[in-house]
Amino acid sequence: MALDAQTRSALARVSTATLTTCLFKRGLRNTFLQDVRPVAAGLPRMVGEAFTLRLIPAREDLDSMEAYADPQHPQRRAIETCPPGSVLVIDSRGEARAASAGDILIARLKARGVAGIVTDGGYRDLAGILRLGFPAYFRRPSAPPGAVFLHAADVQLPIGCGGVAVYPGDVMVGDEDGVVCVPAHLVAEIAAEAVAMTEYEDFVLERVEAGRALPGLYPATPESRAEFAAWQRAKGTSSAG
Amino acid sequence: MALDAQTRSALARVSTATLTTCLFKRGLRNTFLQDVRPVAAGLPRMVGEAFTLRLIPAREDLDSMEAYADPQHPQRRAIETCPPGSVLVIDSRGEARAASAGDILIARLKARGVAGIVTDGGYRDLAGILRLGFPAYFRRPSAPPGAVFLHAADVQLPIGCGGVAVYPGDVMVGDEDGVVCVPAHLVAEIAAEAVAMTEYEDFVLERVEAGRALPGLYPATPESRAEFAAWQRAKGTSSAG
Amino acid sequence: MALDAQTRSALARVSTATLTTCLFKRGLRNTFLQDVRPVAAGLPRMVGEAFTLRLIPAREDLDSMEAYADPQHPQRRAIETCPPGSVLVIDSRGEARAASAGDILIARLKARGVAGIVTDGGYRDLAGILRLGFPAYFRRPSAPPGAVFLHAADVQLPIGCGGVAVYPGDVMVGDEDGVVCVPAHLVAEIAAEAVAMTEYEDFVLERVEAGRALPGLYPATPESRAEFAAWQRAKGTSSAG
Amino acid sequence: MALDAQTRSALARVSTATLTTCLFKRGLRNTFLQDVRPVAAGLPRMVGEAFTLRLIPAREDLDSMEAYADPQHPQRRAIETCPPGSVLVIDSRGEARAASAGDILIARLKARGVAGIVTDGGYRDLAGILRLGFPAYFRRPSAPPGAVFLHAADVQLPIGCGGVAVYPGDVMVGDEDGVVCVPAHLVAEIAAEAVAMTEYEDFVLERVEAGRALPGLYPATPESRAEFAAWQRAKGTSSAG
Amino acid sequence: MALDAQTRSALARVSTATLTTCLFKRGLRNTFLQDVRPVAAGLPRMVGEAFTLRLIPAREDLDSMEAYADPQHPQRRAIETCPPGSVLVIDSRGEARAASAGDILIARLKARGVAGIVTDGGYRDLAGILRLGFPAYFRRPSAPPGAVFLHAADVQLPIGCGGVAVYPGDVMVGDEDGVVCVPAHLVAEIAAEAVAMTEYEDFVLERVEAGRALPGLYPATPESRAEFAAWQRAKGTSSAG
Amino acid sequence: MALDAQTRSALARVSTATLTTCLFKRGLRNTFLQDVRPVAAGLPRMVGEAFTLRLIPAREDLDSMEAYADPQHPQRRAIETCPPGSVLVIDSRGEARAASAGDILIARLKARGVAGIVTDGGYRDLAGILRLGFPAYFRRPSAPPGAVFLHAADVQLPIGCGGVAVYPGDVMVGDEDGVVCVPAHLVAEIAAEAVAMTEYEDFVLERVEAGRALPGLYPATPESRAEFAAWQRAKGTSSAG
Repeated sequence: MALDAQTRSALARVSTATLTTCLFKRGLRNTFLQDVRPVAAGLPRMVGEAFTLRLIPAREDLDSMEAYADPQHPQRRAIETCPPGSVLVIDSRGEARAASAGDILIARLKARGVAGIVTDGGYRDLAGILRLGFPAYFRRPSAPPGAVFLHAADVQLPIGCGGVAVYPGDVMVGDEDGVVCVPAHLVAEIAAEAVAMTEYEDFVLERVEAGRALPGLYPATPESRAEFAAWQRAKGTSSAG
Repeated sequence: MALDAQTRSALARVSTATLTTCLFKRGLRNTFLQDVRPVAAGLPRMVGEAFTLRLIPAREDLDSMEAYADPQHPQRRAIETCPPGSVLVIDSRGEARAASAGDILIARLKARGVAGIVTDGGYRDLAGILRLGFPAYFRRPSAPPGAVFLHAADVQLPIGCGGVAVYPGDVMVGDEDGVVCVPAHLVAEIAAEAVAMTEYEDFVLERVEAGRALPGLYPATPESRAEFAAWQRAKGTSSAG
Repeated sequence: MALDAQTRSALARVSTATLTTCLFKRGLRNTFLQDVRPVAAGLPRMVGEAFTLRLIPAREDLDSMEAYADPQHPQRRAIETCPPGSVLVIDSRGEARAASAGDILIARLKARGVAGIVTDGGYRDLAGILRLGFPAYFRRPSAPPGAVFLHAADVQLPIGCGGVAVYPGDVMVGDEDGVVCVPAHLVAEIAAEAVAMTEYEDFVLERVEAGRALPGLYPATPESRAEFAAWQRAKGTSSAG
Repeated sequence: MALDAQTRSALARVSTATLTTCLFKRGLRNTFLQDVRPVAAGLPRMVGEAFTLRLIPAREDLDSMEAYADPQHPQRRAIETCPPGSVLVIDSRGEARAASAGDILIARLKARGVAGIVTDGGYRDLAGILRLGFPAYFRRPSAPPGAVFLHAADVQLPIGCGGVAVYPGDVMVGDEDGVVCVPAHLVAEIAAEAVAMTEYEDFVLERVEAGRALPGLYPATPESRAEFAAWQRAKGTSSAG
Repeated sequence: MALDAQTRSALARVSTATLTTCLFKRGLRNTFLQDVRPVAAGLPRMVGEAFTLRLIPAREDLDSMEAYADPQHPQRRAIETCPPGSVLVIDSRGEARAASAGDILIARLKARGVAGIVTDGGYRDLAGILRLGFPAYFRRPSAPPGAVFLHAADVQLPIGCGGVAVYPGDVMVGDEDGVVCVPAHLVAEIAAEAVAMTEYEDFVLERVEAGRALPGLYPATPESRAEFAAWQRAKGTSSAG
Repeated sequence: MALDAQTRSALARVSTATLTTCLFKRGLRNTFLQDVRPVAAGLPRMVGEAFTLRLIPAREDLDSMEAYADPQHPQRRAIETCPPGSVLVIDSRGEARAASAGDILIARLKARGVAGIVTDGGYRDLAGILRLGFPAYFRRPSAPPGAVFLHAADVQLPIGCGGVAVYPGDVMVGDEDGVVCVPAHLVAEIAAEAVAMTEYEDFVLERVEAGRALPGLYPATPESRAEFAAWQRAKGTSSAG
């Protein structure tokens, strides 16, 4: 099983910028969901394992408002069964002309203790969603009900979202920049490396704001590493601690 | 004639999400203006009958700053003649490289008691527009004067805006999600249905936030309808009242 | 040399809407950077001469995290050498899948007294950038490091940015609408004309908000010009002063 | 079970234009694959039941040239197992930067008696594909191997292709215009109606080329229907025959 | 009145490349319809005055197959009334998901002596259209009937097509590159200038293919002009003749 | 120095599909120019070292027809100085609304013995270009003169074209699929590997067309390699020969 409390906590303290850098160093170039953004600034950080829902285009004789009454409807099943602490990731194929979800469904996710929701499509009832303060990422607001253009096909298959492969159990992390997908087998090592890199960048930022030039400081050199170690000791903080 | 005070008031209390659902139930799938958003969060709700202005591409020998001096210029005519309470809807053909309007024109609309302005293009002077607090919907900010890329052709013809057909007299409703166009002949029945649906969804949201699961509640069942009726009686509110 | 203190101050008081109008009157139709927006509302106004950085697509055998260690890396060179008071303008070819810059680099620009940064691509660490309150314009947030998709080729060549030609030394002005590029040889006359136009528009806006119709007022007529002159005298302000 | 010989033969004689009209009359508006075209003019007509293959974005640690060596690789499995007479329909999510298939795979499909191949992505080795004269539909040529951007996920699930829902067993028909997806349960009645409509349109076209005006002829009137019946008798052909 | 036989004949001998150059010299930069191409290579040249038809988005309760039965339906009216020798120009707003016209309508235009048809949308029945050999320009093939996404609003108003303003009576010229719109008041002078320029370019091309360098030849110099005059005399041809 | 006769000849016998596969095996994923296609089917194969020309957006006061009279105009300089056997690669930034070149310039390239021309923009005078039978690759036809939207900035700098980095001296290879850019330092080894792979694929295609299944054949296994060696001996051909 994937996301222990320590790793979750570590991931909540690092940025998607740092995580994509760590992934890039391992040859993974396509891990950041493109054209997917938080519904608002200042949301809580999002960390959780992906629970996937796959949408395909709607067909008029199959997709109507009545379809939602079926408790086996995959969208409703996803809402009721994705585990607390997980992130519901919806493959909407970039289709934002209708909603992948709305405020009532997201309120239910929040009540169930789910960690967040991500789509490369749209959400409806944006005002209501904003009131919830729940980590929700999307392409843009979209009022029409999903059934106008979208059909919920199945859950927990590998999907694409924002142009990125998402496998069930991968770890989704979201901040102001957007959402990164960390492959499950790399989560522990990436989290540790990202925490260390974040501490160094905090040090760099403090120095830069004090007037220091970048060369010799960022990226790190042996000298700057030594200086950083001293800075850490002085602050009494260390990722090794 | 179209929008009586009661219907206007009803529409101001329902969301574009609810309205598009009501329209979808009648087979109308394409009523939400795509890629059109409010200039800011927290604007007053927008409700009003469409007064249309049609733009086509500019031609250099016809379109210059001087053209605006003509009081018969259709853009200026639209600004001065669209009725109080109406919404000026501009067919910009999605062209956002130049402005469909700016803060001075929108200030004039506000002073005239117009209910809102919608374009699938751009507005200039965004800072000034935000200061007005007027319901204005657009694709994105765009500083260049309209005549660089746009020519005002005529007013009060059927148009397209955001990919949706808008006929003069249709009712435009705008909220945080964006703008829906309600065909004139359906406005009264849609407004009534939307109010009822909104009350039920308020009930649902209250229950969901208290921990209730969606199946059996949303969409409604005979049992949940009965529970809703009791909830309404307890609150002393009813759309039938 | 281009931007004297008086012109800089004049440009800081006028809008990009007014500047693009002045440029359009001289036949310049393509001066507003398309699809480039401020990272936040309410930033300080941006005025400065363009210092250009050109990016091309990355190649995997050339572009890795190690490349940034080279002090001659053009991106790092641009950050360290663009003059105080200038604006760093990055030609990212519209590529926003990876970052053109991030919070540490922008903190360095701020510390160096640079006036702003503009890209038609993305920035990473948006939360950190917002904390800096620095005039930064972009297409959208983008967490991945630049080297994933971008290679810094050279500095101070003519470039394109947001579909507009930018020559080193052109003057970039940014406000809530976005960024305009004023060709160097026109800066002085455009600035003067824009200040005068802005005063007239302040007068117009005051009149419009008091209920005045647009015809005969906007655009100006000889009569409205006379009225404006009286208004200026009454206020004791004049661009001629 | 689906496509009997008579229906197949009927569908091979009607156009995608006629089929989409018949489907539209039943409320199905979204049946024509958008932005998907034949690899060449003059190919044999394509008719067959859909056998689906689903692609998602590639991930560098999973997708390399070596992956194709696995006989369980879903792309290779699809090539070897889709039935003779069927059409292989590939959901490439519109990704045409790498190939969904190439000349060797398509040669194998042809050798196996498959009726056609459709993707909303790209094919490589276009020259070789053209030599085969096999009904193949795509978005555009694309030389890079699929594994650069695409991962074969599974077969025989409902998919989207060209923005249209495709369920295994739906019938795909292709001509010079492109490809239509006929839902399985409607195939028989649509085929019959389309044949009748095609005969009437042949009659119309003959009349129009002889100088006849459209009103009263197209769409049909009772009078033109009678004239058509006489024309059919004279030619000795009839869909009822 | 506009297009006399001599001007029509002149325009049939010059290219859209030459015409756009002549228009650019007069400050007209936006006269070539973008993303609009001939349905096939090798069609007859197209020259004729624009007769315009305007389409807007469809609405399900207004737009069905039955609508075409009305002889006042603007699309059918356009087909029956656009004058022989004119070009039917359809403003489809770039919507190519359904057809602006098909083979039967185009056969009727051909029978009526119309000079061509242009849309920035799609045509259906491409195979049938190709058989007609009629000058037809479009964005791409599209099988679905127009009513799925398009509503014919009116005829003979100014429109946009391919991003270009087209006024009724402007002259449309089409070749392998695509279609240019020549404003009516400039047609005569543009045609004459284009013929002269074409002769010079024929001379240039002959020289270049014989090995001559471009400088001093293209663009023309006084020396090359003299050489051209001699070449014309030798060939016994001259635009002045 | 780069392209010896043997390597050039090898590259002329292999496909862009094979070359992109060889490059992908070395970790190079982005070598195929996207959305760039041959002007016609059946052109001669294109092989040559890149000579680069960089375009940026036009500015009205700098870019007019007169600009082309300057022999130092970079576009004209590129045409006259790119070496015989090289390929002129034009970075048009994807801008196809005006022409990057036309038939006269391409005729000059052909007369000078240049091997081909590539742009990610447009060409004008397509009919004339087709008559030349010269390997030319573009995004689409575009009649307007380049100066309407493009400014030639410089030659022989690293550029982007079709989303791919192109350094002067890289080797461009074009076929029916499009154009691949082979980095200069890899050309020799890639060419040799591609020739060997092509021979194996010829063997595979022959077997597949004779009814052989793909598993165990493609990709190769030790057994199929042995079979291939026997096939080669039988045919008396070998890349080792």
